[in-house]
Amino acid sequence: MKNAVGREIPESVLAGGREGYQGKGYMDGKYLQKAAPRTRRYENNQESKIVESLAQALRSCGACDGMTFSFHHHLRDGDYVANLVMKAAIEELGLKDLTIAATSLGGAHDPIAAYIEEGKVIGIQTSGIRGRVGEVVSHGKLKTPAIIRSHGGRPRAIEAGEVHIDIAFVAAPTADCMGNCRGIGGKSNCGSLGYAMTDAKYADHVVVVTDCLVDFPNFPASVEAIDVDAVVVVDSIGNPKKIASAAARISQNPRDLMMAENVAKVIAATPWFRDGFSFQTGVGGPSLAANLFLEKYMDERNIKMGWAIGGICGPMVELLKKGKVGKVIDVQDFDLDAVASINQTPGHYEMSASQYANPANKGAFVNKLDFVVLAALEIDTKFNVNVLTGSDGVLRGAPGGHPDTAAGSKVCIIVTPLTRGRMATVCKDVVTVTTPGDCVDVLVTDYGIAVNPLRPDLIDCLDKAGIPHVSIESLQEKAYSLVGTPDDLQWEDKVVAILEARDGTILDVVRKIKPVELA
Amino acid sequence: MKNAVGREIPESVLAGGREGYQGKGYMDGKYLQKAAPRTRRYENNQESKIVESLAQALRSCGACDGMTFSFHHHLRDGDYVANLVMKAAIEELGLKDLTIAATSLGGAHDPIAAYIEEGKVIGIQTSGIRGRVGEVVSHGKLKTPAIIRSHGGRPRAIEAGEVHIDIAFVAAPTADCMGNCRGIGGKSNCGSLGYAMTDAKYADHVVVVTDCLVDFPNFPASVEAIDVDAVVVVDSIGNPKKIASAAARISQNPRDLMMAENVAKVIAATPWFRDGFSFQTGVGGPSLAANLFLEKYMDERNIKMGWAIGGICGPMVELLKKGKVGKVIDVQDFDLDAVASINQTPGHYEMSASQYANPANKGAFVNKLDFVVLAALEIDTKFNVNVLTGSDGVLRGAPGGHPDTAAGSKVCIIVTPLTRGRMATVCKDVVTVTTPGDCVDVLVTDYGIAVNPLRPDLIDCLDKAGIPHVSIESLQEKAYSLVGTPDDLQWEDKVVAILEARDGTILDVVRKIKPVELA
Repeated sequence: MKNAVGREIPESVLAGGREGYQGKGYMDGKYLQKAAPRTRRYENNQESKIVESLAQALRSCGACDGMTFSFHHHLRDGDYVANLVMKAAIEELGLKDLTIAATSLGGAHDPIAAYIEEGKVIGIQTSGIRGRVGEVVSHGKLKTPAIIRSHGGRPRAIEAGEVHIDIAFVAAPTADCMGNCRGIGGKSNCGSLGYAMTDAKYADHVVVVTDCLVDFPNFPASVEAIDVDAVVVVDSIGNPKKIASAAARISQNPRDLMMAENVAKVIAATPWFRDGFSFQTGVGGPSLAANLFLEKYMDERNIKMGWAIGGICGPMVELLKKGKVGKVIDVQDFDLDAVASINQTPGHYEMSASQYANPANKGAFVNKLDFVVLAALEIDTKFNVNVLTGSDGVLRGAPGGHPDTAAGSKVCIIVTPLTRGRMATVCKDVVTVTTPGDCVDVLVTDYGIAVNPLRPDLIDCLDKAGIPHVSIESLQEKAYSLVGTPDDLQWEDKVVAILEARDGTILDVVRKIKPVELA
Repeated sequence: MKNAVGREIPESVLAGGREGYQGKGYMDGKYLQKAAPRTRRYENNQESKIVESLAQALRSCGACDGMTFSFHHHLRDGDYVANLVMKAAIEELGLKDLTIAATSLGGAHDPIAAYIEEGKVIGIQTSGIRGRVGEVVSHGKLKTPAIIRSHGGRPRAIEAGEVHIDIAFVAAPTADCMGNCRGIGGKSNCGSLGYAMTDAKYADHVVVVTDCLVDFPNFPASVEAIDVDAVVVVDSIGNPKKIASAAARISQNPRDLMMAENVAKVIAATPWFRDGFSFQTGVGGPSLAANLFLEKYMDERNIKMGWAIGGICGPMVELLKKGKVGKVIDVQDFDLDAVASINQTPGHYEMSASQYANPANKGAFVNKLDFVVLAALEIDTKFNVNVLTGSDGVLRGAPGGHPDTAAGSKVCIIVTPLTRGRMATVCKDVVTVTTPGDCVDVLVTDYGIAVNPLRPDLIDCLDKAGIPHVSIESLQEKAYSLVGTPDDLQWEDKVVAILEARDGTILDVVRKIKPVELA
């Protein structure tokens, strides 16, 4: 069938009653019968859940062939835990036919690519898919199609029972002997543990992996001992240098600053730019720089931001400390400033991925957002965005919170240069639809601003404020005139990845790329 | 069948595969398939969940005949919310055949007794049952037997699907327009909202009732907006004077102090009285006074308490502020000092009822307790304790956390005078078994100390410390010699209440009391 963003979804992908994407808000108000885990009763007085090794932890949780293990990515490119666990499972226990359900997989997880090629890992469910793992999946080496979800779609799928996690692994900067975990206080601090929370509540078994054991009770706990089966102490859960970087710097690139200023102008032209407004921005150059210009408008109008959410970095913490934002609610920390601030700076709090973005609960933060500013690898004339596949068709990105915030916010602004290198960013059809165009409201580029015709109210706002804007088609034509019309990618039939919309319908598929034939 | 505490459990009560009590730790290590709620998807951008009235909130959640509504008792004797809701449901919507699943019902809920007599309320599930509600249930007016659970047994039953809550009502001292709730910040502060947390996670629908609406987001939230369907703002959720009392005072009664000193002596004679030990005590006279003497021993030995849990009151907050206890983890606050301290005094944290005491999760706090000091209405020569039924057989008590802490702790000490008025506290058979004797280790009375023969290790400790102790039979005989042998109570056949052990097996039943016949 062809879904609401015009993508052909093979019937095989729709087996079992799955639906193609039907449009924004399709599931609103519908009821969902949640699934729930099997849990083990710990009734007797307990001393400790510490076991000697990951292998022992796996055995104590009944690890066997065919299981699904889950991981979270707060340790980012510094993560050691997923590799350590998969090595123990495959090389020590000899397990096979495993599925990895991660919140994101990146360069840190290159060793897992080999397990995919050996057929030991047969399933991948993730948001981010980069590095070697992205390559082997794109080349059709994974036995089943990878399932790519947004950060909100993942807890939705877990709670709905569509992902059944047999064992969740929590990489914990600190833990006590019973498994109460926090993201701060150790040598591998990561701040928020928001993505691990839903996993821990819904997995049949939970194993905590830490390199800093602290006194019981490690409170307030991000992951609670009541959900934990075993605790393993390892030398190191990650490379601190790659977990959190030094403070994210605001771009000094004049092109980025010009786009950022235009983003702020658009925001300031809408009726929702009022005292107490809410905001999320990515950490990319022009997105982050928008903070700076927004602050200027806030000062001019003498208003404050009510709250900000998202992956958090230093500049937002600065706004909080200056009293220019009321509260910062945090699912992940991108830099050391944010790690040092969470639960320390008054008003800087942790939230779960479900609180952040799950579209099937009763009120995720994303659905109360006024503004979100996001980047894109590509955006097409239907305002569909791609943040997953490169121009060569290889998986090397992550929907992350992009589709969730775009769908939930009142105004979603995409900011991107018209071209990158020799590639047109604004195009006729994105390689892969990761955020549907009906969720995207404004595009800000270095060659002009376009407003989605679905939002005549915003067009009116810009006109009244005297902000010039053009059609997205004219931006696409300009891009093609600068770098040429892109060649069509060559695909084989095999589906290597399935893109779920945040509500669980199928947004797009990614097919195996055709090996390059030398002419 | 006769269960492990020798109580005859009618076959009708065991219908559907329920088991009689089998002994402490019977369920340990067994798996439990949890139930999970139906939830409603809120996918669109949301402004507010505030509705105009309780009646409108009920309608928006599909309230109908036969439903189960849940309430929590953090507002204690000052609670208005349960009555307001039941009045709206019965008198405005005309509903009938309702079941109330409360964490406790007391004198504040006398108006509900009339709904029981009218047959509008046909089921009661609770821990505490006092006042008019206890009386009408004892007199057989409730259509189905009341189900009495401990504070740990309740979240267990909810998670297991044995209690299905259609609508949970959260009495919130502060809430925002989306339903994020906190126990502090308003005019009806109650501190911890620990008992409401599991209800909110497992109910199909959740309605927040508040008298203090605050800015979104009300964080850190005890009950989260992602679980809330509707918010109702009322004039007052409770009578602040009855919600939290002035600081609990330590008894000056010489008999209480003598018993408290002996409790501390027993604790100090065991190997678990070491740096970092954990402790819970009730707020009754001699229980609370034990704090005082324990502090003396801690100072003498130069050790500190690692953590304390429970319903919390001023004297424990004082110990925390003096640095004599590391952390205080709090499911309910008994006085204004505790309310003012939670989440404010460093080390004073909130926990859910499941974290506190649920025996079917993977590590409730009670199962890591070293010592608990508890009161009793009666204790018999098998060490079975009754904290539910009065000497006249009428329901006027609450298991609360008694059975949970007794079962989970290393040393459970019951402290009670040998007689109260003309009643023997130590007796041959308690009216109702609410905490089984295999969970009770030591009895401290004003006439001597008895150790459960199941604990030869503790007998050895007391002997080595030179603490005299006697058999519990000798204490019972002494009690009978002082006040006479109690007459047997006269019961009818009808079961009016079922006592569940914390693991869900049936511990005892309470029958309808026979009307007094004048001779």
